[in-house]
Amino acid sequence: MTGTPDELVVAEHRGPVLVLTFNRPAKLNAWTDELEDRYFALLDDAEDDPDVRAVVVTGAGRGFCAGADLQQLKAVGEMDEALAADRARRRPRDMPLTLRKPLIGAVNGVAAGLGMVEALYCDVRFGSTSARFTTALAQRGLIAEYGISWLLPRLVGHSRATDLLLSGRMVDAEEALRIGLLDHLVPTGNVVDAAVAYAADLATRCSPGSMATIKGQLHTDAGGTYADSVARAESLMLQAFRGADVVEGVAAHLEKRPPNFPSLPPVRSADVPV
Amino acid sequence: MTGTPDELVVAEHRGPVLVLTFNRPAKLNAWTDELEDRYFALLDDAEDDPDVRAVVVTGAGRGFCAGADLQQLKAVGEMDEALAADRARRRPRDMPLTLRKPLIGAVNGVAAGLGMVEALYCDVRFGSTSARFTTALAQRGLIAEYGISWLLPRLVGHSRATDLLLSGRMVDAEEALRIGLLDHLVPTGNVVDAAVAYAADLATRCSPGSMATIKGQLHTDAGGTYADSVARAESLMLQAFRGADVVEGVAAHLEKRPPNFPSLPPVRSADVPV
Amino acid sequence: MTGTPDELVVAEHRGPVLVLTFNRPAKLNAWTDELEDRYFALLDDAEDDPDVRAVVVTGAGRGFCAGADLQQLKAVGEMDEALAADRARRRPRDMPLTLRKPLIGAVNGVAAGLGMVEALYCDVRFGSTSARFTTALAQRGLIAEYGISWLLPRLVGHSRATDLLLSGRMVDAEEALRIGLLDHLVPTGNVVDAAVAYAADLATRCSPGSMATIKGQLHTDAGGTYADSVARAESLMLQAFRGADVVEGVAAHLEKRPPNFPSLPPVRSADVPV
Repeated sequence: MTGTPDELVVAEHRGPVLVLTFNRPAKLNAWTDELEDRYFALLDDAEDDPDVRAVVVTGAGRGFCAGADLQQLKAVGEMDEALAADRARRRPRDMPLTLRKPLIGAVNGVAAGLGMVEALYCDVRFGSTSARFTTALAQRGLIAEYGISWLLPRLVGHSRATDLLLSGRMVDAEEALRIGLLDHLVPTGNVVDAAVAYAADLATRCSPGSMATIKGQLHTDAGGTYADSVARAESLMLQAFRGADVVEGVAAHLEKRPPNFPSLPPVRSADVPV
Repeated sequence: MTGTPDELVVAEHRGPVLVLTFNRPAKLNAWTDELEDRYFALLDDAEDDPDVRAVVVTGAGRGFCAGADLQQLKAVGEMDEALAADRARRRPRDMPLTLRKPLIGAVNGVAAGLGMVEALYCDVRFGSTSARFTTALAQRGLIAEYGISWLLPRLVGHSRATDLLLSGRMVDAEEALRIGLLDHLVPTGNVVDAAVAYAADLATRCSPGSMATIKGQLHTDAGGTYADSVARAESLMLQAFRGADVVEGVAAHLEKRPPNFPSLPPVRSADVPV
Repeated sequence: MTGTPDELVVAEHRGPVLVLTFNRPAKLNAWTDELEDRYFALLDDAEDDPDVRAVVVTGAGRGFCAGADLQQLKAVGEMDEALAADRARRRPRDMPLTLRKPLIGAVNGVAAGLGMVEALYCDVRFGSTSARFTTALAQRGLIAEYGISWLLPRLVGHSRATDLLLSGRMVDAEEALRIGLLDHLVPTGNVVDAAVAYAADLATRCSPGSMATIKGQLHTDAGGTYADSVARAESLMLQAFRGADVVEGVAAHLEKRPPNFPSLPPVRSADVPV
């Protein structure tokens, strides 16, 4: 492990997979500005580190993340407009969505409010049987924050999203799997181990360049038209055919051996071709 | 109950919840212009009534709504273009979609054609084991009416929507839950009671202002881009932080007491901030 | 059957339903340019043939379609840019999406890569218990091709689509039904017979004009706004009311007899009114 046990977010390398653990277990890992800064900095590092090919995020103790720390939120309710505007000028809170590398959630307990949003920013979500989700927004007088009113319907459908956003009711792991909040339910064993195994599979068998491009395509196509999507795909396909990964990927498959794909270039401003 | 038993739509107040019942049981509550006028007028009243915080809609007898009364539809098939155009100039048939307050469907039996559309206009749908859905459009030579070709795929996915719209096959309650036509299946007991209990929970625990805003966000974001959604959410959040509901919602949570949120202002033209 | 057993795609008329069978069973029906040309030509013929009211597509032998023939793909990886551009100038590969008549998939085995894309181009998918799906793109260094990054999230949700596109993991028939890759699972009996029975039902009970219009509405509305959808539906409804199919559809229903709808006009350039 890098980071000491008293880090707000603990980082651990498991082969090509970086495991990040929210680490305020006494507070069910409630979100603070400091925790966010640490999490985003670690994701930035992961983006630049050629040895990291996928990231798993989870919570220490019983919870995944209980949402914004209510003491901080209470202060927000009392702070003046200038301060609120300043807060809004911080770096985009949806930064995890722009990561080029796969971000896999290992939801080990409650994911509430902003904690649920953070879970939704993951590309794929594994859950233990203790995983639970609640939006917890309308009960606090809040609105649908940080893009959740756009993301959630695209995961579970418009009506289920309305149900969850209006009522803030608690969704257990089984329902979460049924409606699409979880992609994988881990009925026995450790949810982090299961997520790491999946992430390691992506890291060793899949082209990092392909995954980055596909993530970008999915994001862009979610808000665009079919015709635009096909035109973009055609151009990306020609680019792919010019690159080395297709040759290696097809050769490895025909020769029944593992592929040997290069890492993504470790530049913070690297262009994902989408 | 307000309204006599021979009303086309019966209105009953159960605490903060208004229950509206389509009331042509001998015709499986088939839709007529008169029934629509009465339903929409009652929804208008509900929008203005500060004592109504959520609405439940259901059908009397065995059905929810069998769709457009075929005698009326036959007349439409025979009427001339001027008459049809005049009919199209009536108030928008999707008026229930613009309600600021939660509209909960209690689907007690068949919801066919326009009756299925009315069920889809609800924010959340509860169903009894007798709930059944059929589009019944292509078999009548009709097209995908009143926005159903936009709404249905966003509830159940594109391919299931195509299946239901082309074939008009009957979907039973269990499949409806599985694919997302129903959000909640009530296996025993009364579906109206279950829907009222859910609506009463929204009425007593959730901020009316938050719910109105979130409904607007979901509707706008369904057709827009992620970036627009996040920008809108940021501005709405600053507005929310300036209002009283966040302070009350957070305080109630910390003090472990029920929140005391104000009703929506009873103005028909009230601006929902989206 | 028209076509000899050694055809790349075998065509068989079963009443108003045309059954097309990919026929390279020794290669799990791997896709080649020649197979594509034959498939698209048969779809063109079906579009023009007034006796064909619905099409079922399946694969001979154990597989549905194993994707692009890797020998051809290897050649693509080695061909120069001019050749690749020329390949891109071929007719649109998503031609099946523009068919006015219902296209029903009978997925009898593995649908991989481009074979999965072909399955997704179907309006509705039936699967046998042997049906399996894999994107198989990132493992080959490829990107999300031919619109799959737009189509797949609209079938199964954004997160499940990300899971399937990044990992290329194999999805079995039961999961495929649960997440919406399959609309119907055929646990016993023949999947082609089940798909043909469904298609024959569309052919005999549903208006060909209505189905063509509804397909167009679904496609257009997938990328558009709700307001545009409603405006389009209103205009299409007035057109429908002027046509003969509504009168026939309603009359048949009231008289409890099968409807007698006309075939679509057999012109290749027929305008679908959307």
